[in-house]
Amino acid sequence: MARTTGSHSDITGPRIREAALKLFARHGFAAVSMRQIAAEVGVQAGALYNYTSDKQSLLFGLMKEHMEELLDARAHRVVPQDATARLEDFTRFHIAHHLKRSDAVFVSYMELRNLSPENFDEIEVLRRAYEEHLEHILRQGVADGVFAVPDTKIASMAVIAMLTGVNTWYRAEGRLSVTEVESIYWDMVRKSVAPE
Amino acid sequence: MARTTGSHSDITGPRIREAALKLFARHGFAAVSMRQIAAEVGVQAGALYNYTSDKQSLLFGLMKEHMEELLDARAHRVVPQDATARLEDFTRFHIAHHLKRSDAVFVSYMELRNLSPENFDEIEVLRRAYEEHLEHILRQGVADGVFAVPDTKIASMAVIAMLTGVNTWYRAEGRLSVTEVESIYWDMVRKSVAPE
Repeated sequence: MARTTGSHSDITGPRIREAALKLFARHGFAAVSMRQIAAEVGVQAGALYNYTSDKQSLLFGLMKEHMEELLDARAHRVVPQDATARLEDFTRFHIAHHLKRSDAVFVSYMELRNLSPENFDEIEVLRRAYEEHLEHILRQGVADGVFAVPDTKIASMAVIAMLTGVNTWYRAEGRLSVTEVESIYWDMVRKSVAPE
Repeated sequence: MARTTGSHSDITGPRIREAALKLFARHGFAAVSMRQIAAEVGVQAGALYNYTSDKQSLLFGLMKEHMEELLDARAHRVVPQDATARLEDFTRFHIAHHLKRSDAVFVSYMELRNLSPENFDEIEVLRRAYEEHLEHILRQGVADGVFAVPDTKIASMAVIAMLTGVNTWYRAEGRLSVTEVESIYWDMVRKSVAPE
């Protein structure tokens, strides 16, 4: 993402992204103006254009950052070799990672329709890379004879949808800790791909 | 929902709902004006107010109709007595029903944030009733010893999220029929709640 080398660019960039994410999550991309984002940051609307060329670039930047951060976090994680242990690690990682980023998860799903075709394609490549990361674990388990999955591509999407669904109901003040939620989902994921 | 008894009310009501649903799904509730909805229907903006008091009522009506139609469809379905057969029936029903209503499903999830607190509470009651319908099947299976589910409430939300996820990727022109997709998901759902 282009940045000016001006005096406040390092401070303003993250603050603009944070303000845009919050407003997009609350009102939707189409309903939020650059002026509103500037007001939320506490700068003049013109100052935003030192940082981003338009609202589309801002949305794309947020969604790209969200997916790259997700892929980076996986890439830098020391994962077990065994397919079952890797799937458990994926399950727990996915829930914990997404619960910490509820606005970004919501915007990334909801605003796909507002990406330009080229930007959509680029985000889709990143989303597919994440799905393929899980699919690779499932294929490994099938090859090792520890998983039985009729369609690993669909199973990957099914597991990701199930796990991301935690974001729609989990409340930190509720009856369960994140670790307890991870364990309940892991029980279901583990069995859902098990041979009979 | 209030309706005028005027000459075109029976035609205009469904057309207004259809237009609003389409525009809310495409642009988001906050970005769509009553004027745009009227233009989509091909009437003056004032004519909309014969049908609905405001945009909030229109959104609430759409979401309520979506949930009531879902609950009605379940209530009128002849379902098997056996817990496993009932869960299979639920799985296949949920996927097929939601795939036919992608705009309503998307709007119902995405625009919860834009409901007034009273309207939100009313929709939540309907959503909970649907989750409890599934939870009842899971509890029956646990009581009969054919399911092993550590937390039936969470398992219900997990299964619903997994099944609704089909809407994000399924394309009618793709490699799989709806029935094939149902079977793949049923394989996973069945195993996810099975005893070991």
